[in-house]
Amino acid sequence: MSSLEINSSSSNPEMKLPLSPPLVEDSAFELPGKNTNEIEETAKDIIKFTAEKLSIDEISQLVTSPLCGAISLFVGTTRNNFEGKKVISLEYEAYLPMAENEVRKICSDIRQKWPIRHIAVFHRLGLVPVSEASIIIAVSSAHRAASLEAVSYAIDNLKAQVPIWKKEMYEESSSSWKRNKECFWGTN
Amino acid sequence: MSSLEINSSSSNPEMKLPLSPPLVEDSAFELPGKNTNEIEETAKDIIKFTAEKLSIDEISQLVTSPLCGAISLFVGTTRNNFEGKKVISLEYEAYLPMAENEVRKICSDIRQKWPIRHIAVFHRLGLVPVSEASIIIAVSSAHRAASLEAVSYAIDNLKAQVPIWKKEMYEESSSSWKRNKECFWGTN
Repeated sequence: MSSLEINSSSSNPEMKLPLSPPLVEDSAFELPGKNTNEIEETAKDIIKFTAEKLSIDEISQLVTSPLCGAISLFVGTTRNNFEGKKVISLEYEAYLPMAENEVRKICSDIRQKWPIRHIAVFHRLGLVPVSEASIIIAVSSAHRAASLEAVSYAIDNLKAQVPIWKKEMYEESSSSWKRNKECFWGTN
Repeated sequence: MSSLEINSSSSNPEMKLPLSPPLVEDSAFELPGKNTNEIEETAKDIIKFTAEKLSIDEISQLVTSPLCGAISLFVGTTRNNFEGKKVISLEYEAYLPMAENEVRKICSDIRQKWPIRHIAVFHRLGLVPVSEASIIIAVSSAHRAASLEAVSYAIDNLKAQVPIWKKEMYEESSSSWKRNKECFWGTN
């Protein structure tokens, strides 16, 4: 995935192309010095919207830390059915500047609530076939409760706040664009 | 990892070697027939204790299902510090017949509580270096709440009920075998 990674500082905030693949990596959080660790790595928020297939191994590696005993992950995958209709694939679009900002806010909220280390939020855009991942959220922490709770919070709030639309392609050739039904801003 | 996989029906229930790698795969749960899906795959509990390095990609693949929109995972990793001491690696041992039974009970409890599809519980035995995974739990479900809650329940109950010991190897050449401090059966 590295060829498409763009640091947030070099991305255009006005960019509206839904399939552009910015990677936002914030490094604003420093761990207080401890003599138990030589590598005082900086805490990172890694946010990426991409048309490429997501790799759980790669994303979990991004949040792995020698300071942490826990990594919790959530993977959202395309289901083959919706309200009794057979789904062939989903297609995702996002309004990127707002989507990135909303995800960044969620990361910031998480850091206020739990002592966690790294956060990665990767969302695939475009077509996502059945069983493949549209979103992967990974959070690392010293102890497990923090990352487990943070991942639940992240996906709940991402569904409610981030402007991402999905179009379901059904077997019977029909399709339907929709906002996430949990999302407060949607007008459908 | 496939070379070490042994089906539960062929494993010896009296086996006590801590590094033996049985794989227990139960397929007792059938999904009621639905016309939304051609592949009526059987729900599986996949349990494995192994000396091999764990792969998040491989384990998440085992629980991936076209019927599911969610996979939640917990990865327990070796931290580089414990109570102010620098940890080089952890070493795990398990009493396998009891450990397998306890994990199987946890899977059964989960199926009573949440509508989930597949469960995979993989525990590494022997030496686990800093940042590598000692345990990976993966659960798939149609909707996210079930798998998120099931994974938290699984790791909490695994720590409390499953007979697994860990030995911390410290930089200053000392080490200490201990039960999990949350475990009811331990005598330390």
